[in-house]
Amino acid sequence: MTSPQTDTNAQQTVRVELGTRSYDIAIGRGLLYQAGEKIANLLPKARVAIITDETVAGLHLQALQASLDAADVDHVSFTIPAGESSKRFELFDRLCDDVLGARLERGDAIVALGGGVVGDLSGFVAASVRRGMKFIQIPTTLLAQVDSSVGGKTGINSRHGKNLVGAFYQPALVLADTAVLDTLPLRDFRAGYAEVAKYGLLGDEPFFAWLEANWQAVFAGGPERDEAVARSCQAKADVVAADEFEGGRRALLNLGHTFGHALESAVAYATERLVHGEGVSIGMMLAHEFSQKLGLLSEDDVARVKRHLLEVGLPIRIQDIPGQMPPADTLLDIIAQDKKVSRGELTFILTRKIGESFVEKGVDRAQVQEFLKEKLDA
Amino acid sequence: MTSPQTDTNAQQTVRVELGTRSYDIAIGRGLLYQAGEKIANLLPKARVAIITDETVAGLHLQALQASLDAADVDHVSFTIPAGESSKRFELFDRLCDDVLGARLERGDAIVALGGGVVGDLSGFVAASVRRGMKFIQIPTTLLAQVDSSVGGKTGINSRHGKNLVGAFYQPALVLADTAVLDTLPLRDFRAGYAEVAKYGLLGDEPFFAWLEANWQAVFAGGPERDEAVARSCQAKADVVAADEFEGGRRALLNLGHTFGHALESAVAYATERLVHGEGVSIGMMLAHEFSQKLGLLSEDDVARVKRHLLEVGLPIRIQDIPGQMPPADTLLDIIAQDKKVSRGELTFILTRKIGESFVEKGVDRAQVQEFLKEKLDA
Ligand SMILES: NC(=O)c1ccc[n+]([C@@H]2O[C@H](COP(=O)([O-])OP(=O)(O)OC[C@H]3O[C@@H](n4cnc5c(N)ncnc54)[C@H](O)[C@@H]3O)[C@@H](O)[C@H]2O)c1
Ligand SMILES: NC(=O)c1ccc[n+]([C@@H]2O[C@H](COP(=O)([O-])OP(=O)(O)OC[C@H]3O[C@@H](n4cnc5c(N)ncnc54)[C@H](O)[C@@H]3O)[C@@H](O)[C@H]2O)c1
Ligand SMILES: [Zn+2]
Ligand SMILES: [Zn+2]
Repeated sequence: MTSPQTDTNAQQTVRVELGTRSYDIAIGRGLLYQAGEKIANLLPKARVAIITDETVAGLHLQALQASLDAADVDHVSFTIPAGESSKRFELFDRLCDDVLGARLERGDAIVALGGGVVGDLSGFVAASVRRGMKFIQIPTTLLAQVDSSVGGKTGINSRHGKNLVGAFYQPALVLADTAVLDTLPLRDFRAGYAEVAKYGLLGDEPFFAWLEANWQAVFAGGPERDEAVARSCQAKADVVAADEFEGGRRALLNLGHTFGHALESAVAYATERLVHGEGVSIGMMLAHEFSQKLGLLSEDDVARVKRHLLEVGLPIRIQDIPGQMPPADTLLDIIAQDKKVSRGELTFILTRKIGESFVEKGVDRAQVQEFLKEKLDA
Repeated sequence: MTSPQTDTNAQQTVRVELGTRSYDIAIGRGLLYQAGEKIANLLPKARVAIITDETVAGLHLQALQASLDAADVDHVSFTIPAGESSKRFELFDRLCDDVLGARLERGDAIVALGGGVVGDLSGFVAASVRRGMKFIQIPTTLLAQVDSSVGGKTGINSRHGKNLVGAFYQPALVLADTAVLDTLPLRDFRAGYAEVAKYGLLGDEPFFAWLEANWQAVFAGGPERDEAVARSCQAKADVVAADEFEGGRRALLNLGHTFGHALESAVAYATERLVHGEGVSIGMMLAHEFSQKLGLLSEDDVARVKRHLLEVGLPIRIQDIPGQMPPADTLLDIIAQDKKVSRGELTFILTRKIGESFVEKGVDRAQVQEFLKEKLDA
């Protein structure tokens, strides 16, 4: 793993190496105020269409617009309702139309200012309008900064499932202003933190140990927050560079996600009950416990994962989800239908040790079923 | 230019060289009957969703389905209305949904059976469902065989203009069965032929001379038809391999298209009045005449182009379009709004000789205006 670079303004840069499509992720407090300058440097004369959601528009749009004005970057803004339900066809259609109506050309840029919802939807718009415009991400949730803005997956949901329609499309630049996370509700911050912890758990025990020691400062917003975002981006960037189109190693990023997605699906994506990162947290806990049940992982490691997730306030058991949950058989059916299932075989990310996850194909359905039954009866 | 390969069954293959995304275009009479076998060889165990239009379904769908059955390839079919108006959001949405509803996975294939409309729409569906499925083109119009199925441009129209939303997405295989063209109405065959002639005019005088000598056999369906399709595909493949994302040389393929698109737009894409290839034919004639007016091209070359387009029955003058046409100023405005205009400059494909086209940026607006006035008053 290469290490993030720190420049004089305590701004860090992670480079995502993808040949001609390589790009930088800049990380630091107050970067939003430098957005205009950075965009003008990267894309001289480009015009910009900002896509954001209503909540983020109220909090951070003016700062971005002012920064673009100061750098003489011509811009328009389009605002969508906040929330997962904006990742749908009608809004994709409307935004493509809006961007074309504003007469933006191929060399002009779409700027996504928001969380993963805004990023995923805007990225698909950027990929599709004129078969590809410039795309810049300004992620404003922790989840978006450490996960969804890195790696080039964009898309919308279909009635058959989440993220089923979209494109692999890389941004030209990602600006992660860690100060904008100060306005994020604690629950959303925690949910994003589950993905941060994931990078330690899947492949970097020293990072997990660092998080155990420094998580309070990450939540509080000190330099440790920048550090955690940078290390997470670097971890994802390394995996993406090795496997852009998700053939192999990239699957490790799904640690906790097979169970997690099933839980999200079981509550019909009702975010009052469960948000993605909470599902991931429970899913990671289950993946470690399942690994232990299979004789792969020590009890001590399981206990250590549990302790950390609990201390940051994340849910770790299916029973932590408010309301009635379906029985084990139903959860198993949902898992079997998941898009990560290849030709009917069950694939799981299991682990031998904290920081040593691996992809296991052809996991026995009956064992998963028994495990889920135990967990639900516990 | 590399040359197409001929195998023992008088089937020709053109290879499109795009690194890991390279693929073959197979050309020959009766290939539709080998589709099942070829698909099964290329993508063992893949399931197939055929997308076609109502007209083509009536003529050629059964043959394809039988061929898939014979090769034990599992398939479903989705039929859209024939015609340009199917290249729209609602159908894109519906088809993505249909394909997902049929539970196709990433390794499964979308097969486009039809003309450019089916190919462009299906290609965008294939690019987008699960962020990219396998894609196979079985083009059934001459235009689709020599142009739209080669090069990876896919997409739909927006109310702001044609092909404004889509993806660059390469197929895994193109099967051009030249016998299916026998059911094509003469007008559509001729329109496709304009694109064939274009390859000679833009970069290959010997091919244009060959067409002057052999066009009757191309229309009649002899081996010359296969030859013309193969040479055209090879010409486009060479350009695409050199410039996949349309930065430079690929622009030459727009010979005749700047004027042609303006004419299509002026009749509001009413295909009763003008189909794309007819617009290209008139546009190519205008591009040559404009080149002559600028002192670049000889009168003899202009006369030679005119003679050939006339003898195959293609329109060559704006006045050949039935109904009232807008004045020169309006046409010029349309040209200036065309998406191929880069930051307000007028770009044209001009020519020094038959077979020697080049991209000219920054063409003087006033000269184009004067030229169009002359042509409309002629
Ligand atoms: N593309 C990928 O690789 C990838 C990876 C993981 C998740 N995702 C997607 O990301 C989405 C979830 O992302 P998310 O959790 O960021 O959701 P989100 O975009 O819905 O943001 C969560 C909430 O926080 C609000 N918000 C955003 N920034 C804020 C700020 N600075 N202050 C206050 N409120 C703010 C939003 O308005 C929203 O209500 C899902 O759709 C998921 O599928 C994509
Ligand atoms: N992707 C590209 O690079 C590219 C290049 C050029 C054109 N195009 C697009 O291609 C489209 C035009 O393609 P087209 O001319 O093939 O139009 P089309 O697909 O509408 O086909 C023309 C008509 O012929 C019918 N048809 C098709 N095959 C037939 C057959 N074998 N026998 C009888 N009827 C048949 C169709 O039903 C339709 O009515 C336009 O939308 C244009 O934008 C795309
Ligand atoms: Zn996640
Ligand atoms: Zn054309």
